[in-house]
Amino acid sequence: MSATLVLLRHGQSTWNAENLFTGWWDCPLSELGAAEATESGRLMADAGLALDVVHTSLQTRAIRTAELALAEMGLSWLPVRRHWRLNERHYGDLTGRDKAQTAERYGEDQVFTWRRSYDVPPPPISDDNGHDPNGDRRYAELPPDVLPASECLADVVDRMLPYWFDGIVPDLAAGRTVLVAAHGNSLRALVKHLDGISDDAISGLNIPTGVPLVYELDPTTMRPAEPGDPLARSLGDPEAVARAAAAVAAQAQGG
Amino acid sequence: MSATLVLLRHGQSTWNAENLFTGWWDCPLSELGAAEATESGRLMADAGLALDVVHTSLQTRAIRTAELALAEMGLSWLPVRRHWRLNERHYGDLTGRDKAQTAERYGEDQVFTWRRSYDVPPPPISDDNGHDPNGDRRYAELPPDVLPASECLADVVDRMLPYWFDGIVPDLAAGRTVLVAAHGNSLRALVKHLDGISDDAISGLNIPTGVPLVYELDPTTMRPAEPGDPLARSLGDPEAVARAAAAVAAQAQGG
Repeated sequence: MSATLVLLRHGQSTWNAENLFTGWWDCPLSELGAAEATESGRLMADAGLALDVVHTSLQTRAIRTAELALAEMGLSWLPVRRHWRLNERHYGDLTGRDKAQTAERYGEDQVFTWRRSYDVPPPPISDDNGHDPNGDRRYAELPPDVLPASECLADVVDRMLPYWFDGIVPDLAAGRTVLVAAHGNSLRALVKHLDGISDDAISGLNIPTGVPLVYELDPTTMRPAEPGDPLARSLGDPEAVARAAAAVAAQAQGG
Repeated sequence: MSATLVLLRHGQSTWNAENLFTGWWDCPLSELGAAEATESGRLMADAGLALDVVHTSLQTRAIRTAELALAEMGLSWLPVRRHWRLNERHYGDLTGRDKAQTAERYGEDQVFTWRRSYDVPPPPISDDNGHDPNGDRRYAELPPDVLPASECLADVVDRMLPYWFDGIVPDLAAGRTVLVAAHGNSLRALVKHLDGISDDAISGLNIPTGVPLVYELDPTTMRPAEPGDPLARSLGDPEAVARAAAAVAAQAQGG
């Protein structure tokens, strides 16, 4: 018996559509993003996935994606757990900035490094940024030691993995089929762990939005029996998946 | 410091609109019901209610009501807990039947007794009813001893109160402001307990749909400092509340 884990990246948000760095800012899904979420539910229903529990970040776009997908599956009643450790990467002072303007200001190379390097975080969010989630009531119980001011992907791996081990693995170990509705970078961090992807190779991986990735895990190791390409685990039409991944690569990782 | 509890009955469902007995059958909200849910969120936001946690039944119409209300409040991230003990009264073999046809078949008096008596349940759901929720995966872990085949309001009180004491009171005792999104009869059972309403008097109480009732509870007794009329605890325009309650009384208790 393998343990079944389904990963779902939220669809387009309003800030994705406006080409702004989002990170921990809590913008909603766009209409397109809502349609993507419903479609992902249809894909999971067609695949016969009998989900037992759902985990989400604390961010509305992932939460709504789960709500819409589960509604499409007739599974709105599933138990749901939320945790900040599944949040998107914190984009530091880039949060709320236009991606093109940021490239003009800092140079394409610097912005590429911030977006794609494994271990170089953007500058910490500044007092006058205007989109600092610090002070948001949903994070009120987090001590300053864990509330990020900026994150690189390595930081996301470090803060996400404790929730994987402590929050999600116990559900899988109990035989539950688990859906994780989260974000481009928190899911990149998770598939990096699961498929053993190197620090260098992870920068080339783009997780498509609204396309469920299905992992069959060895219940003793909680890793795939055969590590491989995360995108090969996608539900749905392979060409559509490839197009979606390419669109993400061309536009905006970390929205 | 009092503990704040907010009770919210879901808005119109598709079966309410069709005048069918619903009970444990899982029909969705109608468009009107969805609008009622969003409006209830606006009422709670206007009242400045800082909710900390939400409890729902396992039925889609209550779950969606909570989702829409919380979305309107920007509180989709709240922790949510679900439990079958908050479900609507099980309507036995009346489930799925037209209310007018049921009155023709059994007589107005008998149907009035089933709908309004405290302790007379309808006939148990029959094998050929076609709308038996038994076998639904969400109830798969319930032993036959607790899965109802029909319920009177007294039965609902008995099965709801353990969740009040074990599932909801601990949140209130921890200082959390709690929203309970549930059903006409599970909420009637709860306000009967909270306001000390007699078995006779509870039959005259109609909880309006989509109107939050706000209870300030003494944290030592977990009852209102002054028991009173549940409807006097409503948010929103008193005349609209009275109209909504009258509409429920005229039409369909237990939808």
